[in-house]
Amino acid sequence: MIQSTMQDFPLSVAAILRHGARVYGHSECVTWTGGGTPKRATFAEVAANAERLAAALTRLGVRPGHRVATFQWNDQEHLEAYFAVPAMGAVLHTLNIRLFPEQLSHIINHADDQVVIVDDSLVPLLARVVHELPAVEAFVVVGDGDAAPLERNGNGAPVLRYHDLLAAEEPGFAWPEVDERAAACMCYTSGTTGDPKGVVYSHRSTFLHAMAVQSASLVGITEADRVLAIVPMFHVNAWGLPYGAFLSGATLHMPGPFMQAEHLTAFIEAERSTLASAVPTIWNAILAHGERHELDLSSLRSGTSGGAAAPRVLLERFEERYGLRIIQGWGMTETSPLGGMAFPPPGVEPGTAEDVDWRMKSGRIAAGVEMRIVDADGAELPWDGEAVGEIEVRGPWITGAYHRDPAPEKFHDGWLRTGDIGTIDDLGFYQITDRVKDVIKSGGEWISSVELENHLMAHPAIAEAAVIGIPDARWDERPLACVVLRPDASATAAELAEFLGDKVARWQVPENWTFIDEIPKTTVGKWDKKPLRARHAEAELKVERVEKS
Amino acid sequence: MIQSTMQDFPLSVAAILRHGARVYGHSECVTWTGGGTPKRATFAEVAANAERLAAALTRLGVRPGHRVATFQWNDQEHLEAYFAVPAMGAVLHTLNIRLFPEQLSHIINHADDQVVIVDDSLVPLLARVVHELPAVEAFVVVGDGDAAPLERNGNGAPVLRYHDLLAAEEPGFAWPEVDERAAACMCYTSGTTGDPKGVVYSHRSTFLHAMAVQSASLVGITEADRVLAIVPMFHVNAWGLPYGAFLSGATLHMPGPFMQAEHLTAFIEAERSTLASAVPTIWNAILAHGERHELDLSSLRSGTSGGAAAPRVLLERFEERYGLRIIQGWGMTETSPLGGMAFPPPGVEPGTAEDVDWRMKSGRIAAGVEMRIVDADGAELPWDGEAVGEIEVRGPWITGAYHRDPAPEKFHDGWLRTGDIGTIDDLGFYQITDRVKDVIKSGGEWISSVELENHLMAHPAIAEAAVIGIPDARWDERPLACVVLRPDASATAAELAEFLGDKVARWQVPENWTFIDEIPKTTVGKWDKKPLRARHAEAELKVERVEKS
Repeated sequence: MIQSTMQDFPLSVAAILRHGARVYGHSECVTWTGGGTPKRATFAEVAANAERLAAALTRLGVRPGHRVATFQWNDQEHLEAYFAVPAMGAVLHTLNIRLFPEQLSHIINHADDQVVIVDDSLVPLLARVVHELPAVEAFVVVGDGDAAPLERNGNGAPVLRYHDLLAAEEPGFAWPEVDERAAACMCYTSGTTGDPKGVVYSHRSTFLHAMAVQSASLVGITEADRVLAIVPMFHVNAWGLPYGAFLSGATLHMPGPFMQAEHLTAFIEAERSTLASAVPTIWNAILAHGERHELDLSSLRSGTSGGAAAPRVLLERFEERYGLRIIQGWGMTETSPLGGMAFPPPGVEPGTAEDVDWRMKSGRIAAGVEMRIVDADGAELPWDGEAVGEIEVRGPWITGAYHRDPAPEKFHDGWLRTGDIGTIDDLGFYQITDRVKDVIKSGGEWISSVELENHLMAHPAIAEAAVIGIPDARWDERPLACVVLRPDASATAAELAEFLGDKVARWQVPENWTFIDEIPKTTVGKWDKKPLRARHAEAELKVERVEKS
Repeated sequence: MIQSTMQDFPLSVAAILRHGARVYGHSECVTWTGGGTPKRATFAEVAANAERLAAALTRLGVRPGHRVATFQWNDQEHLEAYFAVPAMGAVLHTLNIRLFPEQLSHIINHADDQVVIVDDSLVPLLARVVHELPAVEAFVVVGDGDAAPLERNGNGAPVLRYHDLLAAEEPGFAWPEVDERAAACMCYTSGTTGDPKGVVYSHRSTFLHAMAVQSASLVGITEADRVLAIVPMFHVNAWGLPYGAFLSGATLHMPGPFMQAEHLTAFIEAERSTLASAVPTIWNAILAHGERHELDLSSLRSGTSGGAAAPRVLLERFEERYGLRIIQGWGMTETSPLGGMAFPPPGVEPGTAEDVDWRMKSGRIAAGVEMRIVDADGAELPWDGEAVGEIEVRGPWITGAYHRDPAPEKFHDGWLRTGDIGTIDDLGFYQITDRVKDVIKSGGEWISSVELENHLMAHPAIAEAAVIGIPDARWDERPLACVVLRPDASATAAELAEFLGDKVARWQVPENWTFIDEIPKTTVGKWDKKPLRARHAEAELKVERVEKS
């Protein structure tokens, strides 16, 4: 054998910080203040504050491996915590400010957070659970706002001021050597089904993901960019932009609590952002705002959209009105999150229908991520754009377990089961069509509930439709179509089955139909199929059979 | 403590290969054939051939950890070996075809190469040493040319044909799992001083370096690129372009043996290369060729130059004549090689003198590489663009030893001593001014011999000048200026000392002068100072003293 002679140099958050602070010390973090002068700090200043924060946290008893949570907006102080906490060897736990109280206390306790850094504007939200956090030893409040509600925590944890703590320290904290496989950050899934699950990123995965964000084939940020990170920093590392910015020198634009379209667009206009990243809801709000106001988005070279599939009209409108190409990215908490982005291949003319077709894909597999689709038996399916299977991924920034929960049902031979159903074509573009839990397994084949629902909802008589799988002795499962008719409209099950007959394969047409008053919905307005399944199981739904001719 | 939940997924050459073969299976490797139709293969075809080659090498007895050498031009078959050998767990040893015979046999034996793959056009060069390679068990010849000279190897090693071997195998080789720290490739330094030293790249360093090549802040290649790799594949992994292309989908343009400017420019014109990478000598040859021929280089978005500092006029001419921006990169065999590239910072107007000033820097520190300058005592110096010290680097693709030679004198606290002297400014741009071995250590300070030589050679009476350090009881070393006067010109030592007096600091002006007939030179035309030092040591140089006033 022969030994590599390469240095055993750990990939770490401290290395990202050193690079940004020294090579791009002049690049800036610009935080929007809602109309006044934006707050500016150079990367060198952010790094100096991160050193002060690490010193302060050490004084509070934080040691390598301990968890420090943040309950913050996208702003300079949150960025300082992004670097200080992992670089000192502790673990940054970003808390989603939109969680229900019981979820919030659950994950703080599940992660054993020792310190919580909280923005003063968010103190009331955190205060709702402050008496249920026995392990928290200190609260650190950013800003001068009222922090009294936090004093009423059950365990006498002190409530300290961020800026006081930093003022008492000097820069120059000596970052420890870390094992690159040590925990750096953690984030919980939103837990739409069951309790949220914790994903713990390593220094290695964080560094590699930041390299990927820099890749010219992906986000490709450089020092010439001014990146408006609308995607929250509590939402899977703000898609890697903060760390990517320190590796590449891209200036960071941080909206703080000003997430309304008028603020975001004013920020873009004032600071000439070159790139903005947001979920479709925000992009839609900007579009709506633009219908009533003249907007100058000409500084944006691109926008990235993720978190949910964007409607086609969104991509088209931004292109038509602003010449702005929105590129969709796909990922999950479990994938750090960058799994792929839907950049059309070379040669496709921007602005054409073909260009939008490509951009409507879920993504193209990112270098560093491996993907496959498998059928219900776990056998790999071809990349022909036709075969439909569960998407599985693996790679150095993909999770292989959950915090204190190996969750073997979520993995398959070392691959993460994404729970998404879709196709992959021969260029590595993938299209997600459904969720595994919503797909109907019939005779070893899958029937897409989403596809049936989309067809049904195009019928003039139908207001809403949901399709669920119900047990079937012969086929394992068969689809049950749950239909809400429009007021004054009428249609029979047989008519609707015939309507579907020329749109999907014959065997996919449901023979079970029920007419109901409303489809149950989740708090974010998605179909909630659990109550439907329960009602069917308890024989509360009146099911009509349409026999195949 | 808390465990990261990330997958323990190895960074490997096989992962690079899988990505290129599947996501960019349609991208191409195009090999120039000297005028006829270029030879084309898709990445999918290259991958299939790599699988056949791995099967064939396995049949020849190659096992994980064994070394397979290549003695080849930049072409498709070399690319196949680039992937097959490391992906099968063996170690790719790229042999420099320009080595002296004794160096060539030395490194083949030092690396214990078991198989040598050789292009038929290079058989005569390899044949010169074939009887001195006892460990080689097989020679594999690419092409149908005469291979008889290899038959006369001392150990009866068979001489096989590459295309026969591949034809006998099927694709579908199952790449083994490798430890990412295992050896993947090796390359020897050119060994201008002493024997060549082997640097052994790991799978990890190779993958990370390929990610860096993709970075938008550096070469930033994407699927839209057609990359003309003029830099030889035996020269530090062709600067990472082959592996970078498979991660990014960039088409590879391979010149084969056709390294003359007329071929390279014909290739660019015919295949519309978007990027070309070469040493300054090649760029100069293209410029010279362009003086006699109309060239269309409009497809090139950029050119990269490395291996030696490019003269300013080279950058200026390419910009003026072809609108082509040549960007300099810096690296060494020891650094994989990408250490940094000299892209001007944002806001600098392309084509201005300021733009060229930035591009004349040696580079700007690449993300993933850490750099510092230290004084003669090893103390770190500031990044002020003024302080001059030895450049040291560290990082995941920097070597920490040499093959079978820890060479502790080349390292300092875990940093590689580059042997280069220079400055770093506050933006992380560095400027190499000298080699450590050529610098004069005087009273704890350094005097740049290169700077003194450049000033002296600007004097109208001087044809050539070299400055060496000679022992000095008080100052440790003092400069001795060795001057060759132009025919019919005259100047005294005192006059020349005075001439230097207003160009460098007073204490840097040599007080020791000698007038000689010629400066000794190396085979590549660089000053060879060793004979001068020897002649001074043996008192063969007549030294005149010029006392400071």
